[in-house]
Amino acid sequence: MKARIKITLKNGVLDPQGKAIANALGALGFDGVGDVRQGKYIEVELDDTNRASAEKTVKAMCEQLLANMVIENYSFELEDA
Amino acid sequence: MKARIKITLKNGVLDPQGKAIANALGALGFDGVGDVRQGKYIEVELDDTNRASAEKTVKAMCEQLLANMVIENYSFELEDA
Repeated sequence: MKARIKITLKNGVLDPQGKAIANALGALGFDGVGDVRQGKYIEVELDDTNRASAEKTVKAMCEQLLANMVIENYSFELEDA
Repeated sequence: MKARIKITLKNGVLDPQGKAIANALGALGFDGVGDVRQGKYIEVELDDTNRASAEKTVKAMCEQLLANMVIENYSFELEDA
């Protein structure tokens, strides 16, 4: 089973990397660009084939390692291999 | 309109960051973890309300700035604001 995890900064947390991208897009001539936010995307292959237990595992992974719960949110999708 | 862009390393490109995550998950006691790949996730707000032209814009953004087409792939979804 494959987990596709998105980790994003919480609303209100300053995102200088996103601002840099927005400025660079403006400099390249892209108009009408509003807010840009950068996050992380992580794909994890799991041996587990049970959806419920895989969900629990990925949740624990995010909370213990992958996301900083003080400033980040996470969401994920599971996909059968 | 909001674009949700995922940028991932192409298959075969070495991903030391992903390997580090896989090792750290193992050290934390998560078993059955296979390959881990890390990519980027970017959200861009666009003033454009036309789906076809927004799609063209986001494609150009990815190819010109956001993704390194030599080693990375991109995919994106558009969402009406």
